[in-house]
Amino acid sequence: MTEHRVWTAALLVIGDEILSGRTQDKNVAQVAIWLNEQGIRLSEVRIVPDMIHRIAEAVNELRATNDYLFTTGGIGPTHDDITVDAIAEAFGVPVVVHPVARQILERFYETRGRVNEARLRMARVPEGAELLENPLSGAPGVKIGNVFIMAGVPSIAATMLQALTGKLEGGRPVVSMTVGAFVPESEVADLLRETEASHEGVSIGSYPFTKDGRFGANFVIRSENRSLVEQCVDELAHGLVSAGYEPALGGI
Amino acid sequence: MTEHRVWTAALLVIGDEILSGRTQDKNVAQVAIWLNEQGIRLSEVRIVPDMIHRIAEAVNELRATNDYLFTTGGIGPTHDDITVDAIAEAFGVPVVVHPVARQILERFYETRGRVNEARLRMARVPEGAELLENPLSGAPGVKIGNVFIMAGVPSIAATMLQALTGKLEGGRPVVSMTVGAFVPESEVADLLRETEASHEGVSIGSYPFTKDGRFGANFVIRSENRSLVEQCVDELAHGLVSAGYEPALGGI
Repeated sequence: MTEHRVWTAALLVIGDEILSGRTQDKNVAQVAIWLNEQGIRLSEVRIVPDMIHRIAEAVNELRATNDYLFTTGGIGPTHDDITVDAIAEAFGVPVVVHPVARQILERFYETRGRVNEARLRMARVPEGAELLENPLSGAPGVKIGNVFIMAGVPSIAATMLQALTGKLEGGRPVVSMTVGAFVPESEVADLLRETEASHEGVSIGSYPFTKDGRFGANFVIRSENRSLVEQCVDELAHGLVSAGYEPALGGI
Repeated sequence: MTEHRVWTAALLVIGDEILSGRTQDKNVAQVAIWLNEQGIRLSEVRIVPDMIHRIAEAVNELRATNDYLFTTGGIGPTHDDITVDAIAEAFGVPVVVHPVARQILERFYETRGRVNEARLRMARVPEGAELLENPLSGAPGVKIGNVFIMAGVPSIAATMLQALTGKLEGGRPVVSMTVGAFVPESEVADLLRETEASHEGVSIGSYPFTKDGRFGANFVIRSENRSLVEQCVDELAHGLVSAGYEPALGGI
């Protein structure tokens, strides 16, 4: 097998509402799944408060160590929407009004009230930025360098991702299959370790659960090589049978 | 008003399963809410892969910049449970078997099979660590320095938090109240900004939503000072009425 490049991305969630526990995050999972389909691995997530210097610091760390950085949250029309300002600070550029974003907003609000000062806030971008399509709500996302600035509302973030599908350079997606069994994971720890060790490039994660009062675990086998994953699933399933357990392909 | 100290914590989620999108995180919200009850603010969350050097690096950054650091995940009996090893590396100490943890596991498994080598993995701690109670599943959590190492399974993490309730030094909890209205947030951006600006120590977050096809927003007012929050809620509610909207106390 030849070496190949692994593409990585980080996600920065700008989120007082997540850090206070008020809102359950929904963006991590949807960004993770979408990235894998693009052949890009989600390598780190950070959630920071709505504070310009904290956002800017995280942006500069994460964009330097990953191929791509996505941010969610803080791009609306109110005083607490400071993501654009923070990212401009991170890049050391001023905030400017993007003429096309302004047009988009003016057209969008033609039939929905008026374009007031607050709404025009959403046309502000770090100097040098491009726009990301947002078919849903008028206000576009923003791209500067390798940073993609998206909305925090999950349904809007989803449409921005959809518009980006297939447009980013990536590698091979990770293939993942699950085998579950009603077995305490500690009973099959050796089997898991040995199966992983004998298949280079495969990782096996063990995720315990209780269901209807019974202990069990799901074993998730991951690799970019599908046939290796399938082979590993087979061996693990046989190993579980040999140890007296009933494997459930697809997990429990 | 006298200055007072704000206590902060970070949460490190050790989680290939979260980064792959397979599992929806449940720990961020429950740790956030519990911390606030202890008078401690959740100041940052990081989610990193199951890789020793990535975990160790994040641990050293986050324990230095926060009063407390909590970790979830990776403390079970299988080969992919490497949190203890990573945190020992972060502290520059060896991993040792904690005699009390060993006793707890031996007693726990007396009636539930046998204590095999895999299960004894869960008695391993960074040298110098103390144990955290875990009434639910035998394997204790671990405390070393200001770092609290907890299980990833949310129900087990919850019992560990419960056992820690009232035991950590903290300040005053943040009081949070919500006012909602069917109003596009951009229509009341000035009102929000001015209300926040005229109440020092209060922050107002604006969280848009759509419900039954109507646009609306919830405004979350936060401060350690309850009467200030209540005053702010009153003013905002009156401002919304003056602007022709019907405020819903408690949010929509």
